[in-house]
Amino acid sequence: MGMNYDRIRDWILAEDSFDADRLGKCEAVMSLGNGYMGLRSATEERYLSETRNLLVAGTFNRFDEQEVTELPNAADLTAMELWVDGERLTLERGVTENYRRELNIRTGELRRSFRWTSPKGKTLRFESRRIVSLRRLHDIAMTVTVTAEDDLTLKLRSGISARVSNTGSQHFSEVEKRFYEKKTMQFVERTTQSGIVFVLNAVHRFFKNGAPLALDTDVNIEHRIIFADYMIPLKAGESFTAEKIANVNTTRDLDNEGLTLPELQERSRADLRESEAIGYAGLAEESAQAWREEVWDRTPIEIEGDEKSALDLFAVRFAQYHMRVFVPAHDRRMNIGAKGLSGEGYKGHCFWDTEIFLLPYYMFTAPEIARKLEEYRYLSLPGAHRKAAENGYRGAMFPWESAWLDDGETCPLYAGTDIHTGLPVKVWSGIIEQHISADVAFGVWQYGVISGDTDFMERFGYELIMDTATFWASRLEPGTDGRWHINDVVGPDEYHEHVNDNAFTNYMARWNLQKAMEYADRLKTENPALYARLDQKLDIAANYPLWRDGADRLFLPQPTAEGVLPMDDSFMDGEYVDLSKYKAQDFVGGILKDYSLEQVHHMQVCKQADCLVLFYLLEDQFPPEVKRASWDYYVERTLHDSSLSLSTHSVQACDMGDDAMAYDLFRKSCAIDLGPVMGSSDAGIHAAACGGIWQCAVYGFGGLRMLNGALRIEPRLPANWTKLRYTVCWKGEKFAVTVTHEGTQLEKLTHGREIELTVNGRTVRI
Amino acid sequence: MGMNYDRIRDWILAEDSFDADRLGKCEAVMSLGNGYMGLRSATEERYLSETRNLLVAGTFNRFDEQEVTELPNAADLTAMELWVDGERLTLERGVTENYRRELNIRTGELRRSFRWTSPKGKTLRFESRRIVSLRRLHDIAMTVTVTAEDDLTLKLRSGISARVSNTGSQHFSEVEKRFYEKKTMQFVERTTQSGIVFVLNAVHRFFKNGAPLALDTDVNIEHRIIFADYMIPLKAGESFTAEKIANVNTTRDLDNEGLTLPELQERSRADLRESEAIGYAGLAEESAQAWREEVWDRTPIEIEGDEKSALDLFAVRFAQYHMRVFVPAHDRRMNIGAKGLSGEGYKGHCFWDTEIFLLPYYMFTAPEIARKLEEYRYLSLPGAHRKAAENGYRGAMFPWESAWLDDGETCPLYAGTDIHTGLPVKVWSGIIEQHISADVAFGVWQYGVISGDTDFMERFGYELIMDTATFWASRLEPGTDGRWHINDVVGPDEYHEHVNDNAFTNYMARWNLQKAMEYADRLKTENPALYARLDQKLDIAANYPLWRDGADRLFLPQPTAEGVLPMDDSFMDGEYVDLSKYKAQDFVGGILKDYSLEQVHHMQVCKQADCLVLFYLLEDQFPPEVKRASWDYYVERTLHDSSLSLSTHSVQACDMGDDAMAYDLFRKSCAIDLGPVMGSSDAGIHAAACGGIWQCAVYGFGGLRMLNGALRIEPRLPANWTKLRYTVCWKGEKFAVTVTHEGTQLEKLTHGREIELTVNGRTVRI
Repeated sequence: MGMNYDRIRDWILAEDSFDADRLGKCEAVMSLGNGYMGLRSATEERYLSETRNLLVAGTFNRFDEQEVTELPNAADLTAMELWVDGERLTLERGVTENYRRELNIRTGELRRSFRWTSPKGKTLRFESRRIVSLRRLHDIAMTVTVTAEDDLTLKLRSGISARVSNTGSQHFSEVEKRFYEKKTMQFVERTTQSGIVFVLNAVHRFFKNGAPLALDTDVNIEHRIIFADYMIPLKAGESFTAEKIANVNTTRDLDNEGLTLPELQERSRADLRESEAIGYAGLAEESAQAWREEVWDRTPIEIEGDEKSALDLFAVRFAQYHMRVFVPAHDRRMNIGAKGLSGEGYKGHCFWDTEIFLLPYYMFTAPEIARKLEEYRYLSLPGAHRKAAENGYRGAMFPWESAWLDDGETCPLYAGTDIHTGLPVKVWSGIIEQHISADVAFGVWQYGVISGDTDFMERFGYELIMDTATFWASRLEPGTDGRWHINDVVGPDEYHEHVNDNAFTNYMARWNLQKAMEYADRLKTENPALYARLDQKLDIAANYPLWRDGADRLFLPQPTAEGVLPMDDSFMDGEYVDLSKYKAQDFVGGILKDYSLEQVHHMQVCKQADCLVLFYLLEDQFPPEVKRASWDYYVERTLHDSSLSLSTHSVQACDMGDDAMAYDLFRKSCAIDLGPVMGSSDAGIHAAACGGIWQCAVYGFGGLRMLNGALRIEPRLPANWTKLRYTVCWKGEKFAVTVTHEGTQLEKLTHGREIELTVNGRTVRI
Repeated sequence: MGMNYDRIRDWILAEDSFDADRLGKCEAVMSLGNGYMGLRSATEERYLSETRNLLVAGTFNRFDEQEVTELPNAADLTAMELWVDGERLTLERGVTENYRRELNIRTGELRRSFRWTSPKGKTLRFESRRIVSLRRLHDIAMTVTVTAEDDLTLKLRSGISARVSNTGSQHFSEVEKRFYEKKTMQFVERTTQSGIVFVLNAVHRFFKNGAPLALDTDVNIEHRIIFADYMIPLKAGESFTAEKIANVNTTRDLDNEGLTLPELQERSRADLRESEAIGYAGLAEESAQAWREEVWDRTPIEIEGDEKSALDLFAVRFAQYHMRVFVPAHDRRMNIGAKGLSGEGYKGHCFWDTEIFLLPYYMFTAPEIARKLEEYRYLSLPGAHRKAAENGYRGAMFPWESAWLDDGETCPLYAGTDIHTGLPVKVWSGIIEQHISADVAFGVWQYGVISGDTDFMERFGYELIMDTATFWASRLEPGTDGRWHINDVVGPDEYHEHVNDNAFTNYMARWNLQKAMEYADRLKTENPALYARLDQKLDIAANYPLWRDGADRLFLPQPTAEGVLPMDDSFMDGEYVDLSKYKAQDFVGGILKDYSLEQVHHMQVCKQADCLVLFYLLEDQFPPEVKRASWDYYVERTLHDSSLSLSTHSVQACDMGDDAMAYDLFRKSCAIDLGPVMGSSDAGIHAAACGGIWQCAVYGFGGLRMLNGALRIEPRLPANWTKLRYTVCWKGEKFAVTVTHEGTQLEKLTHGREIELTVNGRTVRI
């Protein structure tokens, strides 16, 4: 019941029963998209509990001064409501049989079918299909087919409805709505604050028993809605198909630059006519072709093994599917939202998730996309400078949450409720979760090294690394011990706010300072012209001594006598709590039902253990015995209440040689969205967890890692896998890695220059 | 099935079955209110098709420049959702028995009950009660009682939700939300443009088997919502009751003037504590007492007769009920919306409906309310002056649609769709439906005469009549015939736009000009001080000759040879169409499904026959044979596609001596909201039709009419009525009229000065 995995070998995720009160799960995990837009998979018929989202990347709007900017929920195109002899088709009533919904991740097509008998006793079979075209970024296409088993009259209501909001906040003003030639519906709306105009078009084609059917229409243009009702009498055995071809354009789109609104209205209608002529089947086929070319043929991954491994493989591909659905590969002015484009959660904002969890996938498989994600950071520098200045610092202080380029910090001030005071809880991350600036620098460096993209580094990369180093130099606070400290921060473990000398933050800050010096030193000799340009822009001459002083004198938490690296200056003084109750819960955040966040701050409880993330990123900076002792210590105290936690812990478990735990955490990571538990994906899929799944497979079991500029492969294949094969892009070349329990084979797929790497400690050149 | 009238003799309107797709009817006709606020009777559990409205009179807000100001839908307090062993209680699933919802119009209490068995087979009985207090204008109180027939665990979710909108337009920004002492929820929101702050409080009391019960709570404060979940295990036979006491305050309220927001937050919580201490039963009793004192004991009406007459009586009382629910008796800065406070239709705006359809009831039964409704017009004068100036006229040109005092014209520019072009249809009423200015003057005069309120006339009334006369004088256009004309208008019959010399408009304009002259002449001699003041303000000296010239030379349509008064200069040239198809339809506006409004303009079709409205208002200005010929002519051509049409035609039918038609139209008028047809009240009840029902009974069958300043009574009792008794306020005195088929009795109820009236042509003094 619920999620069904019986066709995962056909790349199909299925749902085999329907619960009108638990819609969020499949709406999110089966969501469609192409990076330009994300379409939550709400059903054709409407339900009270639905969340019907159409999100276009980068079209942020701010409802009012109290709210932060968010990705607005555009007018809905997907609702196609049916009445059968006057009774509304809703699976809450009547009798539903053979219910099935399937997402084919290979083709990006969603299908749904069931047999339904109305309360009055009329029976029909329902089938629908839907795509968001990966070939034509503006296109959505869908079909609904009803086959009557009794004589009945169908009413179809379909149109465009802007009576949607983001949990009540309305981001759009109506501009124009029109029904052209009794055929094409056009709805034009404009975001209230950012002024982005959306033009949505929809046209219908009808078929009876497969033959084209002309239907007279009763159009309605009302407040925020345009729709038509179609009446279709059917005899038993007859079938009716409605195709709905739609497109979405905005004035923010690069490919619409320079167009006036009337031109855009006209051109989008012309585009629609072209897509209408192709029809659903053709559009679906060309989109499936794009999925093959862009994703599956380009970055294939294979896992062989026992029955469980089939689900493992599906999980990795499911992650790849969503990593294409939600990545704005077409436009570097946007980034990846924490919930992708599959829900309103986290308001479409991007976090450190991009660099630490998602970037690895794109760096190693689609470097041109990775580059765009980091160019976004470069284009966001004005906001980072403003945030630094507002906080009394210098350089680039990246926002904890980012939206549009010049928005700056977009982290909300309040969220949730304090169980004691009844007041909303202040979100400190936007103010003091500062490690993001080092994370960005780390991502930039990783991308630069792995891609070998010197053009990127020269135009954007060095500057980002130096500008963030300047931030850190300005951020340091003197201590009575003669060292620099970083006080009053939140580390990745958000269960401890206002801590001093968070290990993750301090080590990453030092890394950032050192990397800036390293590049400055190198450029000074190797590329003096670039150095001079950067010096003029960033005043390297004046900042370099500050970087050096910062790196040299920055306090770094040191291991205890037992070898445990303290997370910060207070964690180990906290109260020890038995977490078994919360670890046994099938939902996250349970501890906050018993304790306020303020109380949790004083307990030895990690949402995710940020020391372990640190070991993962800077693996060579800590001796094995410290990693081991810290691992044992923190694992016990970690609740994995962040979806980010499982995958880094899985990879780390591989590094620790704890294969059982590595596989267990990998599977738990896969289950975050893909698992049978309903509710957890309501606000959208967990984008970073998708990156995490791929990292578990390729970084963890596949053993791939870039360390100090060099590539190494040290696989640890799970016992139930017999083979893992993945492809890697490295400095412009591409090769495949095949891991079996017998050994590791490399196969070069491009024919450029030779590359060197280490496989299980042995240097290999291919 | 559906509406049920079996308890109308107990003042109870009932619904005996439930259809989740046809909720609007009972939401509207069973809506609660007290003039300060209107609460649409949405069910405790939520449904997809619901419209959950809480409207506070006069709190208009404009979403954006494209939309007109509207009464915003405030945060919801009424939803109380239940889960039974994890299954959501919704009547779309499981088995519902003994469904019943009842509105008691005598007490203003709504009750609802049913027996429900969940899909899993757990059975319970549900009962709810709800009031909007007529004693405490800010208070809403409700209870839900569940009696378990099986052992089960109930989950109750209740709170305050601002995730509501007006068909998608969000009028509120969040300000603050808080849970005080784990008990009182407070939600503060502010209208986005008008800046009105709403403070909503809610508190719960729980009982198990009648005894107080303390429940621990799990509070949630999320975006635009605050709610708590309560878990209640029940054994078979046990009952659980949740009382929810809530209040609503705004910074626009007169009784909150001078308070800071923190003071208002604090005081409203103190008020809530007081109401909480009283509890639901006490609050309901004191509100019922207020209904008795304010409405039923004060303006009683009685009808005796056959079985049908019982429904007739209920219909009149139902109209009285709503006329108290929606009238802002507490605040003269507001007026009556076309849908009262029972829905979003017509956006809370007031129209000529106030003066022509509603004012008679208040004038004759509650003059202090009637006075406030007309003072609203006086306070709106700046907007009327602005509208005149914007259109190149002088004096007071009243907006076709009015909202807040200084909003001016609030008629939307577009509504509906042209079936041929697919474009929205322009609404001309706001620009050229100009008779409203004469209607306002007419209402002012009627109130002044009937109430004998010289204070009102001296402070507001004369000025309004003269200022509108000045508008008319400036509005007139010269014709080649040496007469003045009023071209390019819409009369009350909105099926003909852009007509010239609309009879209703021209005759009413002349009446207005003449009335201004009459008062100017009188004041000059009888009250020279007032005359001087008005002359200074309105320049009577300069305007009087223009009034006179206008009245003397205004073209007035004259009867044809057959005695038919032409509606305008083109109606009779229009195409004659057989309307039987549309007259047989059980919905209105059917003709617009076959013809565009532009086509209808050229047809002999009336939405309502405005000549007949004219005969009704200015009954002595037309000879009986013209009225008769016109009646025969127009009745055939009238679709009654305006809810205003039936009642005036019914009264007119009484005047014509067509008793059968009079009674038939009266019953149809009653059925507009009260009848069994679903759907027609979705956007709210028809306020003017409520006034119309009362007019049918008292003006039509009761024969009451003020003519040229004198009161006359000429009853025409329907054959199936044996007795009609109503009370009348006349110049400060009050008397009862008892009509039987034997004759008419008067009974003076006050003991002031003697009054004189004509009863069936005989002068009577009491």
